[in-house]
Amino acid sequence: RKQRILAILKSEKVFDKSQNYFSGRMERFERALAREKKLQLLKRKHKWTLDEFRTASELVGEPGPYGLHESMFRITIAGQGTPEQQEKFGKAAEAYKIIGCYAQTELGHGSNVRGLETTATWNSQDKTFTIHSPHLTASKWWIGSLGRTANYACVMAQLIVEGKSYGPHPFIVQIRDMKTHEPLENVHVGDIGPKFGYNTMDNGFLLFNNVKVPHENMLARFSQVDPKTNKYVRHGSPSLIYGTLTWVRSTIVMQAGSVLARGVTIATRYCAIRRQFQDRDAPEWEKGENAVLNYTMVQIRLLPLLAATFALHFTGKGMMNLYQENQKRMNQTNTSRESNKRGAGPEETESGSDILADLHATSCGLKALSSTIAAEGLEVCRRACGGHGYSSFSGIGPWYSDYLPTTTWEGDNYMLTQQVARYLLKSARAVLKNPTPTNDTTRILSHFQSRVNIGCAFDILGSDEDIVAAFAWRASFLTFEALKHRDEQKKPWNDLLVDFYRLSKAHSQYLVIKNFYDVLRSGEIAQSTSPPLRTILLKLFQLFALHTLEQEGSEFYVSGACSKHQIMLARTSAVMNLLKEIRPHAVRLVDSWGFDDWVLDSSLGREDGKVYEDMFYRASELNPLNKVTVDPYPESEVLFKKVEGGYGKSKL
Amino acid sequence: RKQRILAILKSEKVFDKSQNYFSGRMERFERALAREKKLQLLKRKHKWTLDEFRTASELVGEPGPYGLHESMFRITIAGQGTPEQQEKFGKAAEAYKIIGCYAQTELGHGSNVRGLETTATWNSQDKTFTIHSPHLTASKWWIGSLGRTANYACVMAQLIVEGKSYGPHPFIVQIRDMKTHEPLENVHVGDIGPKFGYNTMDNGFLLFNNVKVPHENMLARFSQVDPKTNKYVRHGSPSLIYGTLTWVRSTIVMQAGSVLARGVTIATRYCAIRRQFQDRDAPEWEKGENAVLNYTMVQIRLLPLLAATFALHFTGKGMMNLYQENQKRMNQTNTSRESNKRGAGPEETESGSDILADLHATSCGLKALSSTIAAEGLEVCRRACGGHGYSSFSGIGPWYSDYLPTTTWEGDNYMLTQQVARYLLKSARAVLKNPTPTNDTTRILSHFQSRVNIGCAFDILGSDEDIVAAFAWRASFLTFEALKHRDEQKKPWNDLLVDFYRLSKAHSQYLVIKNFYDVLRSGEIAQSTSPPLRTILLKLFQLFALHTLEQEGSEFYVSGACSKHQIMLARTSAVMNLLKEIRPHAVRLVDSWGFDDWVLDSSLGREDGKVYEDMFYRASELNPLNKVTVDPYPESEVLFKKVEGGYGKSKL
Repeated sequence: RKQRILAILKSEKVFDKSQNYFSGRMERFERALAREKKLQLLKRKHKWTLDEFRTASELVGEPGPYGLHESMFRITIAGQGTPEQQEKFGKAAEAYKIIGCYAQTELGHGSNVRGLETTATWNSQDKTFTIHSPHLTASKWWIGSLGRTANYACVMAQLIVEGKSYGPHPFIVQIRDMKTHEPLENVHVGDIGPKFGYNTMDNGFLLFNNVKVPHENMLARFSQVDPKTNKYVRHGSPSLIYGTLTWVRSTIVMQAGSVLARGVTIATRYCAIRRQFQDRDAPEWEKGENAVLNYTMVQIRLLPLLAATFALHFTGKGMMNLYQENQKRMNQTNTSRESNKRGAGPEETESGSDILADLHATSCGLKALSSTIAAEGLEVCRRACGGHGYSSFSGIGPWYSDYLPTTTWEGDNYMLTQQVARYLLKSARAVLKNPTPTNDTTRILSHFQSRVNIGCAFDILGSDEDIVAAFAWRASFLTFEALKHRDEQKKPWNDLLVDFYRLSKAHSQYLVIKNFYDVLRSGEIAQSTSPPLRTILLKLFQLFALHTLEQEGSEFYVSGACSKHQIMLARTSAVMNLLKEIRPHAVRLVDSWGFDDWVLDSSLGREDGKVYEDMFYRASELNPLNKVTVDPYPESEVLFKKVEGGYGKSKL
Repeated sequence: RKQRILAILKSEKVFDKSQNYFSGRMERFERALAREKKLQLLKRKHKWTLDEFRTASELVGEPGPYGLHESMFRITIAGQGTPEQQEKFGKAAEAYKIIGCYAQTELGHGSNVRGLETTATWNSQDKTFTIHSPHLTASKWWIGSLGRTANYACVMAQLIVEGKSYGPHPFIVQIRDMKTHEPLENVHVGDIGPKFGYNTMDNGFLLFNNVKVPHENMLARFSQVDPKTNKYVRHGSPSLIYGTLTWVRSTIVMQAGSVLARGVTIATRYCAIRRQFQDRDAPEWEKGENAVLNYTMVQIRLLPLLAATFALHFTGKGMMNLYQENQKRMNQTNTSRESNKRGAGPEETESGSDILADLHATSCGLKALSSTIAAEGLEVCRRACGGHGYSSFSGIGPWYSDYLPTTTWEGDNYMLTQQVARYLLKSARAVLKNPTPTNDTTRILSHFQSRVNIGCAFDILGSDEDIVAAFAWRASFLTFEALKHRDEQKKPWNDLLVDFYRLSKAHSQYLVIKNFYDVLRSGEIAQSTSPPLRTILLKLFQLFALHTLEQEGSEFYVSGACSKHQIMLARTSAVMNLLKEIRPHAVRLVDSWGFDDWVLDSSLGREDGKVYEDMFYRASELNPLNKVTVDPYPESEVLFKKVEGGYGKSKL
């Protein structure tokens, strides 16, 4: 499927990438819009399924101006609109007659949704809502697809009915004329300007000066204002959203693996090609320059990241499986409960929802950990390419810049750790009351609690199972430490944020290690991979685990999970040996990710190794700056004295 | 002085920054060239000294097309040219009649200078050199100012005389016509294309197809080919360069402080303005949203970096002082030796050169450590600004992108650590033979060696002196460990690179801690600062030291420098208390760096706190994308249906 879609994309001129790295923002945005339009037309022409369309978008690999229409606007209407609203707005959105965005974040408010300042005031006389931005800081900001593209917005605003505020609710608001595409009266809208990356997207701002929308424009599946009584009515809580967020975060975890894999592929291939210096201890007959990937200082940077790509992929996949299984089970429970009025026993329902609660909390921590690993790992890959990593042609820098916001959106990576800690504290309190575990988190906490006075002895260098147990032990230790600080010592929440951050990280690292290990032991992997490949995957598991353990050495030591000697051996012996063992397979392992050269768009990461030829071709043949002849002398006011083909014309 | 020059720059239209963040590469390069020219004219008009000119360049704060002419081309001629060559090439370069660059790095060779492929073959018949690029990988690459601007290059090429290679030597080569500025025959030159940053500079490539230059074009102060005998002659070694490199690296250390200070200033000011969420434990009367800087999770990211800005500044300054004093002393020694034929005693000369050797090695490690702290610290600052940190208007992203190559040039930060380790191993071997110290490195190694069997007991939480001693102990411990691996266990060099990296980091951290501490105890600081300020500086020292110690906890523990309990207390108690104590002074401390708003060019870092007004103004008034009205519908082939003021015209 991937190959077929790739062939279609490659044959369309609009997807030609050769000017991507050279173009300024205007050209890049214009081209991105053209590509988005073409993707829609191709989708219709080839009758792509949603999955096929997503594959195509992923292959194009750049954020585009329809992005938030596709993801958030349509999904919000589908999830929070009534059937009538879905008919009216959803259908038009599906046909791209209205193009929307999701306007939540404000200039002054990001993470704290409760603090949003935009208001939607109910007018009982004419049964409308007045949408208003009372201050400059109430301006919607960062809203993807809003800057230039959208003509509708789903606006999150504080609902006010008869002087009382009911918190943020979603409103569908037209913002631009359907014909002229000019902003409507009393709507101030525009693009927020250039960013560190993501410049193919028109993130926008939006201010309302008392704009009225009809009653039907408040998405009313879960709550509404009764137009007859003027009362606020709640139809139940949007618990689905709870699940959706968990799903979105699981996707981020899995994506983090492939996002990082691009950088690791480029850096590994290049470091296998690039030769520099001689090995000081090499025998006489090998006195040529050494491939950079043979240096342990390069291996220690790249190979644990290679291991991380698989660890994150398997973890994300594991979470998604667990989520789906659990959804299925809960649906069954619901069905059986409906058919049998006495219903399922409490332990069954509890179990289902406890697993969902566990998944929700762990997805927060894992989102933070995995996107941090991917973002920071990409920069490590870029630097491992030496000077050439700094060239746009490396392909890593632009990719990194576009990925970076993932560390902030869907929950800021630092903020999220509080949710994980809160959940772990709650679980620990539950275990102290009743040690019978209801999910994996209470299982490890309960086990720790039962053994804490006896202590532990993990053979981290000899047993893979013990590695997993050591990670569980350290996370549990930190949980009960934090509990002591909060519940016994009554420390202020703010004083514990740093501890919570560490705790969340420790628990999430445990989850990645555990998921990776579970996959390697599963029947599925035994069927789908050859024994030699499984051996290598096991070594990747060990490398990822021991390298992480060694980086966090003092926490493992303090918790008693490892001895000083074990940590020293992990570093100086076990990790170094694993690097040696994995090195010969490194290139094949990155190849297994299967990135096409067209997708990577990188001189350094070319599969055929023609690194320098490609760098040279792009610089000397494609680079528009080389069409310019300057006047270099300070006394001359002339800057560009000659420009081949003229200067400043559109590149399109 | 700074204020006076700043006023001049602000009054010149060419230095207007308002379009910097919006422009594409062509416009940015064009504007940068215009600014460089104007700076030269201003320098002449105001008769600026070199220092004044440098201040002006720093205030403009962007890399420019004359950059490598000023720094490397002119300096190389001055340092390695004969008086005749200085007269001929140096004078013309000073007058900007010839504009040069320094062409060393090649497409296939960066760090390994010995491996360069460009050749300069001596022709005994016509007394010329033939400069040639035998392969594509021999292409000069990354050469600043070469792409479009320079008409001359100082080319490093392998000197070949009568079939024998004598290693890389510098040759002055004309590459473009002085009138037309077109490349000369058999010279292939151009810009290497866009980069992660530094796009106002025209880094270039350069290939020679057997280009002849006369005998006088080989810079001949230290070695030459005798035109009569055709023999290679050496006039002594360029030991000055050894000193120059040390000087350059000291500059990088000091600059790292101010580079990082920009990011810390922006982030600290913004986090003091930005309010988000309530403090969960705040009393009822303080229920408004809390300034982000009050959250410990923000403090732990920013305040140790604030401390690092001072630590790096003082360390760089300390190194430069030491270097200058030592140069002075060596000159005196030389003079006295000349006047007194029997000369100074060996301990005196030894001492002088041992301090220089020490400075050279430590400058390698400190360059690596400080530029890594600054580069990674800037990214931490950017993220601490939340979502808005991603906007170019934060001013941090562009600054970070431009700074990043510092981690690679003047010695790749990973490569450099080998030189430090090599030096430390040598010093440790010397100490084992003769424990009498000759400089600070041998002093701490010797002290460690005398105490290693007795052990140590440092009161890191009670005594600042003991903190410094603990850092010395850990660095010494790692040195002797590495020595054991290399000399006793005969481990291959390649297997030890990771240990060497850690060793270099440990030793460099010790040096920063020690320098910071020494400055705080010096008479100079007592005279120039008030007692309350000194108290705060001391707290910054403690924060930087204990935070670093806690980050590297396991090494301190393993070396025996600290107990498990001390490391835990450092983290949970000492560091958290210091954050609390420093927080009220944070804004004043960043203000003391004295960055003008014009210099920072940041919405978030504005001194007057008008963060949101400025963001909004830039987005809605300055942003050229908002002049575009798009046609958003997929069926329409029109992309931009209206562009106010036309599209694609030069912004100049």
